Amino acid sequence: MGAKMVEALKVALAGLGTVGAGVVKLLDENRELIERRAGRPIEIVAVSARDRSRDRGVDLARFAWEDDPAALAARNDVDCIAELIGGSDGMALALARDTLSAGKSFVTANKAMIAHHGLALAEAAEKAQVALKYEAAVAGGIPVIKGLREGAAANEITCVYGILNGTCNYILTEMEAKGSDFDAVLAEAQRLGYAEADPTFDIDGIDAAHKLAILASLAFGTRLDFDAVATTGVRLVTAEDIAEARALDFRVRLVGIAEANASGLFQRVHPCLVPRSHPLAHVAGSLNAVVAEGNFVGRLFFEGAGAGEGPTASAVVADLIDVARGEYGPAFAMPFDRLSESGPIDTGDRRGRAYLRFSVHDRPGVLAEITAAMRDANVSIESMIQRGGAEPSEDSDDVVSLIMVTHEGPERCVADALERLKGAQSLAGEPMWMHILDL
Amino acid sequence: MGAKMVEALKVALAGLGTVGAGVVKLLDENRELIERRAGRPIEIVAVSARDRSRDRGVDLARFAWEDDPAALAARNDVDCIAELIGGSDGMALALARDTLSAGKSFVTANKAMIAHHGLALAEAAEKAQVALKYEAAVAGGIPVIKGLREGAAANEITCVYGILNGTCNYILTEMEAKGSDFDAVLAEAQRLGYAEADPTFDIDGIDAAHKLAILASLAFGTRLDFDAVATTGVRLVTAEDIAEARALDFRVRLVGIAEANASGLFQRVHPCLVPRSHPLAHVAGSLNAVVAEGNFVGRLFFEGAGAGEGPTASAVVADLIDVARGEYGPAFAMPFDRLSESGPIDTGDRRGRAYLRFSVHDRPGVLAEITAAMRDANVSIESMIQRGGAEPSEDSDDVVSLIMVTHEGPERCVADALERLKGAQSLAGEPMWMHILDL
Repeated sequence: MGAKMVEALKVALAGLGTVGAGVVKLLDENRELIERRAGRPIEIVAVSARDRSRDRGVDLARFAWEDDPAALAARNDVDCIAELIGGSDGMALALARDTLSAGKSFVTANKAMIAHHGLALAEAAEKAQVALKYEAAVAGGIPVIKGLREGAAANEITCVYGILNGTCNYILTEMEAKGSDFDAVLAEAQRLGYAEADPTFDIDGIDAAHKLAILASLAFGTRLDFDAVATTGVRLVTAEDIAEARALDFRVRLVGIAEANASGLFQRVHPCLVPRSHPLAHVAGSLNAVVAEGNFVGRLFFEGAGAGEGPTASAVVADLIDVARGEYGPAFAMPFDRLSESGPIDTGDRRGRAYLRFSVHDRPGVLAEITAAMRDANVSIESMIQRGGAEPSEDSDDVVSLIMVTHEGPERCVADALERLKGAQSLAGEPMWMHILDL
Repeated sequence: MGAKMVEALKVALAGLGTVGAGVVKLLDENRELIERRAGRPIEIVAVSARDRSRDRGVDLARFAWEDDPAALAARNDVDCIAELIGGSDGMALALARDTLSAGKSFVTANKAMIAHHGLALAEAAEKAQVALKYEAAVAGGIPVIKGLREGAAANEITCVYGILNGTCNYILTEMEAKGSDFDAVLAEAQRLGYAEADPTFDIDGIDAAHKLAILASLAFGTRLDFDAVATTGVRLVTAEDIAEARALDFRVRLVGIAEANASGLFQRVHPCLVPRSHPLAHVAGSLNAVVAEGNFVGRLFFEGAGAGEGPTASAVVADLIDVARGEYGPAFAMPFDRLSESGPIDTGDRRGRAYLRFSVHDRPGVLAEITAAMRDANVSIESMIQRGGAEPSEDSDDVVSLIMVTHEGPERCVADALERLKGAQSLAGEPMWMHILDL
């Protein structure tokens, strides 16, 4: 207590993009409240960014400026660095290493860096007895890292899954609302600033995979294994898929899901059909949501803004408040050397229902060829719809869709059926396979 | 590190009902995992309950037994007490005081005691520099205390609200699903064990009010003020109300809501009409959910099991893990002497829409009498439905319902209209007033 308690936590900000500027605004606007909650003031003392002259809508003149972010770690007047540069390696990673080895705490919103290097950084933080915190790296403003690390800490978590990318969820929600195709909605999202000029990380599921790998490690006490996340994005989802899913009482969502059991770790990001009775089906627009199933608590559901200036700044500053309160703790809920090694499971053993869309030539015999492959692969069909194609003919060039929902069965059987159909004359394109979320 | 880190946290349990037995089971079943996460073992060393001989499905012989819970606080081999006795005063409160003044940490699931005495206990805990934790007291297994206290700590919270009583939500959900009346569903809930033999605390909203007062203090940094919660339960909600709400695209929910602004603190527990587009409308059965609106994070939504052995034990043990990790912090997010005094606001100033049901005699002139009162009180009517009563007659003894939804306006106008109608000949019973949640 006494003198030590009222000394400010002195913070340096690396990166002054949207989130960095948001952190400055938040610390200004909620200053008095944060001091009451943190037990002491939180003060920015130094900043670093690429362009000193750009107007960010905040007064930066009161902070020391460093052109090189690496210089922040060396400053004696800094207790903690908040890294908002981004990128899995390069400047951000160098700064993380320098900060921790200088014995300062490190707060970051950088999911790519944590997904790739989180374990090594956790080790460095433990050795230096400082904090490594990354609430903003997963699901933006939702305190899901804290929820798993602390709130659900008494539970064996059997499964963690959710909607981890707001751009994809925005696109899927718009596609459903407007009946539009993917490309049109993506272009509109880019125009509105909801999608990046290069949207690859978002729409190919890589951003969601980064977050899922982090959640899995935290939930299961396993070593981070980003490379083992099976990742498929939303590029191939069509307006037709969404309409068919809807007719079957589902919504299409990009779901990241991780499960741990005796045979290993399962991590997958994939478009899924979510029943409308499931809370994830009601997560609309750019919101994110995470579900965790614990062996005592049952299902926990967290929802909120997954990105943006305010929500992300909220998560970064929550971490700074934890650091100010002296609540460091191990980054992945337990010391890094107690995280277990868990190999990926054979997904072929997973049981589930599948949604399949085949683009087929509108000719006689097509259905027989496809259903024969299903039979030979032991896939049992629950329902089937063939759109268009009232009068197929031998020389038709029309392409129509055949939609199937399978009964529950091992995924390897569906994979086998699709393998058998490779190069089949009936098919006019790659089949679409979405998993049905039956949780 | 070293020796200090591996010493167990030694816990005494006071109360071995459903939750107490659940805590024993959880600490047994998840022992190894909890040790990895907490950084040291958590061990029960002593227990106390009313009846030593009752079979609780757990082995208690390995723990020291105290007939008097007060004796637990005096034991030298105890670091922390988990109180699961219940009741706002009496044994539980005496134990809380003894524990804190003995310099031990105190974990509780006791919402009534925290709502009434939380501030004094927080002061005692701060003086003794020990932890006072009560995650299980609000919304069972959902880590909402942590979510507000830490996860949303960077935000000025403008509003916190939610479904805080699983019994009421179960009853309302069943009434909607089956079209049954309140009494029938309550009796069934009692038979199934979802409602207590004496259900007063639950169905009259007192339990929800305890939880709301706690959430409000934590969210706004105001001193706990349970007595200022305006509380109405669900006894008077009819199957007809639920059907009419449904026809208007709402669901009836018992909502606890708190707001803070310059003019004071608003705290209310009341049956509300929740639009089906709002996440609270999808909270079904005995689930609980809490929404917090922060000035940077926006809307956060937490949902999960609000009661029961496993979920409540999960929250109690999460608190024990925090204590084991040395994360004490002030109980209401900031030192008790920094919590502000905030008087209740005049609810008459609140603007909103109202749902009104009048039980009226099926006679001519009834509608004129009621609408005149509305006009005189400046209440503007958005919609009105009169059920039955095709041919009203002067001497009819039939009672029919008149349902109104008002336009948005100050609550004092609705109160004024109802005041004007007191003793009106048209009315065959007390009018029903529910607020419409437009958040």
